[in-house]
Amino acid sequence: MINRIYLDNAATTSLDPEVLNEMMPYLTTYFGNPSSIYSYGRETRLAIENARKTVAKLLNAHPAEIFFTSGGTESSNTAITAAVRDLGCKHIISSKIEHHATLHTVEYLSKQGEALLSYVNLLPNGQIDMAHLEQLLAGSTEKCLVTLMHANNEIGNMLDIHAVGNLCKKYDAVFHSDTVQTVGHFPFDLRNTPVHFITGAGHKFHGPKGVGILYINEQIKIKPFINGGSQERNMRAGTENLYGIIGFAKALELATQHYESDSNYIGDLKFYMKEQLEKNIPGVTFNGDVLGKSLYAVLSASFPMTDKSEMLLFNLDINNICASGGSACTSGADIGSHVIHAIYGNTNTVTVRFSFSKHNTKAEIDTVIEKLKSIV
Amino acid sequence: MINRIYLDNAATTSLDPEVLNEMMPYLTTYFGNPSSIYSYGRETRLAIENARKTVAKLLNAHPAEIFFTSGGTESSNTAITAAVRDLGCKHIISSKIEHHATLHTVEYLSKQGEALLSYVNLLPNGQIDMAHLEQLLAGSTEKCLVTLMHANNEIGNMLDIHAVGNLCKKYDAVFHSDTVQTVGHFPFDLRNTPVHFITGAGHKFHGPKGVGILYINEQIKIKPFINGGSQERNMRAGTENLYGIIGFAKALELATQHYESDSNYIGDLKFYMKEQLEKNIPGVTFNGDVLGKSLYAVLSASFPMTDKSEMLLFNLDINNICASGGSACTSGADIGSHVIHAIYGNTNTVTVRFSFSKHNTKAEIDTVIEKLKSIV
Ligand SMILES: Cc1ncc(COP(=O)(O)O)c(C=O)c1O
Ligand SMILES: Cc1ncc(COP(=O)(O)O)c(C=O)c1O
Repeated sequence: MINRIYLDNAATTSLDPEVLNEMMPYLTTYFGNPSSIYSYGRETRLAIENARKTVAKLLNAHPAEIFFTSGGTESSNTAITAAVRDLGCKHIISSKIEHHATLHTVEYLSKQGEALLSYVNLLPNGQIDMAHLEQLLAGSTEKCLVTLMHANNEIGNMLDIHAVGNLCKKYDAVFHSDTVQTVGHFPFDLRNTPVHFITGAGHKFHGPKGVGILYINEQIKIKPFINGGSQERNMRAGTENLYGIIGFAKALELATQHYESDSNYIGDLKFYMKEQLEKNIPGVTFNGDVLGKSLYAVLSASFPMTDKSEMLLFNLDINNICASGGSACTSGADIGSHVIHAIYGNTNTVTVRFSFSKHNTKAEIDTVIEKLKSIV
Repeated sequence: MINRIYLDNAATTSLDPEVLNEMMPYLTTYFGNPSSIYSYGRETRLAIENARKTVAKLLNAHPAEIFFTSGGTESSNTAITAAVRDLGCKHIISSKIEHHATLHTVEYLSKQGEALLSYVNLLPNGQIDMAHLEQLLAGSTEKCLVTLMHANNEIGNMLDIHAVGNLCKKYDAVFHSDTVQTVGHFPFDLRNTPVHFITGAGHKFHGPKGVGILYINEQIKIKPFINGGSQERNMRAGTENLYGIIGFAKALELATQHYESDSNYIGDLKFYMKEQLEKNIPGVTFNGDVLGKSLYAVLSASFPMTDKSEMLLFNLDINNICASGGSACTSGADIGSHVIHAIYGNTNTVTVRFSFSKHNTKAEIDTVIEKLKSIV
């Protein structure tokens, strides 16, 4: 294997060997259908229900509030669609810097005429303009769904989920928060958080790909997004991704156990990188609320546009350094970042997102800085 | 481990160690996000595109017609919903013996007023009444979606997919077939099959759980069911279940390679079991078109209702024999089988579905027959 430096942990993370270990019995010995009534099915059913209990406990929610899905995207689609179709929210309030899982869903619903769509203004640092949010809520003649992400995957900005939740309460709005970048990265106390729906994706915190959760507050009753068998208490049909679910719970358990030390370690890396970039790369700037409410794992840097910096990601790749221009999903299309554009307009810069995990080291960052110096 | 006899392979199958082997590098070394542009993402992207090519080739379809999903249920939801919302089918023709993934979806759409819903009559053996199907198509004032399963998971009945497809062609109807019980069990030649959508689920043929396919004929253009990133060529958003996809392709490859010998072997088991049941259990009958067009892996038997037979599944379970009362999804709820009820009405019998795989043996069947004799 080539010696890679992987600084794209907001796109996806490596599967923790301990998590895989926990999944293995279900990839080999225990394969029964969790819906079967005989004991062989009950074993796997029990494993799923234990995973649900683990997840619920770690997030301080009820097990009945946790639903396993195929990932963060499906979870957000489910929550947003249900809020409009089942909970009577005919006005969606969102922001232009949401992940496409949210943006494309709210755009679809608004295009179909199923709901009005408003975007809340952003402050210069990319944070939500809370005064404008209240204005939108206060001025709405329809029941509102507010869908705002807890942390932005490209620039790291974090939302005050309590402040937004309390505003939503005041105006009787449904509140969905895309927490894909924070579940497994921060402690949650859902029983004391004013939010109706949150989402998570296993692969963002060293769990498996293809599995996620949707938290639905117990006061909320929706119809299934995917119809069929009675899995997930009739809320999400389809034979369960058994290993994925087991892995999700284990990964969340490990993440929670090591939160203090991991978050400190990773946050140090981020600020070390920021410092080194400032020292070594003239003209570099940082996007978002980098010194304020921000993910400890994400650093979004902009480099002045030059012939050389245009080829930055390409040259990093050649040097076996993995970093991203925006989110993984948009970078493939190479159409630039909708997040950077929404906050800063057309900038004459090249944006690179560095995102860290517990497996990164300062030595790796030193190497990256050296390469960057020679590239730019 | 207890020595189990697993005769519930229509519910789910064991993961083939060769398939797991193929998945392992992606559970350990190669974890890059397939949507990332750098080479580390390209490796996994390539693996997914190779899996797609493999699947397409094995089904004689174009790679661009194969979409990976989270399973058979999501695939059917996608096809049916798209036919109604994107292809203008305002009349759905289905049958009462479809899987709940189909039934609950068409019921939902009809309840929402998005489409009319007709059920085609069934013949006494549970096969589709083709004359009635043509009558429904000919009499419809709206564009039709015909959704009829290729093989019934409870009684094994198989549809003449070509005959139905040609009827659909004649009346310009869209044709979706739930092929979850046949993909990986029979050869497919999609380029020469008049069908618009088919579905598959990896776990039904010794592949992984939580992954499926949707085939969409290239002449059909639909909108995504799950909105978000640009995965699956903008048709199915969400970070891919990388290992699942790899495993699906490998499992289908193995199934196709060994089709001749496996299907003969398994079919022999089915008829051996039928023969032994007839010899040893007075009053036993068989459901569906068991001697006609039927799955080689499924045998649905009915036992006269007695105090003892009522506890049949329970007693089989105690004896470590896994079999099912209906589909896995309905058995949990214990409300009886909608399939048996639709064909036979209220019967005074106890139905058990035995379903076989290449891992079963005649010796196992002998053991089961002995147990059954003592139970009933
Ligand atoms: C903020 C955010 N929301 C949603 C998603 C979608 O998650 P997934 O791709 O696992 O469905 C991602 C990651 O891709 C994300 O970063
Ligand atoms: C005929 C049929 N259709 C659809 C499904 C649903 O597949 P899955 O549970 O993998 O989503 C199944 C199996 O559960 C099935 O047997």
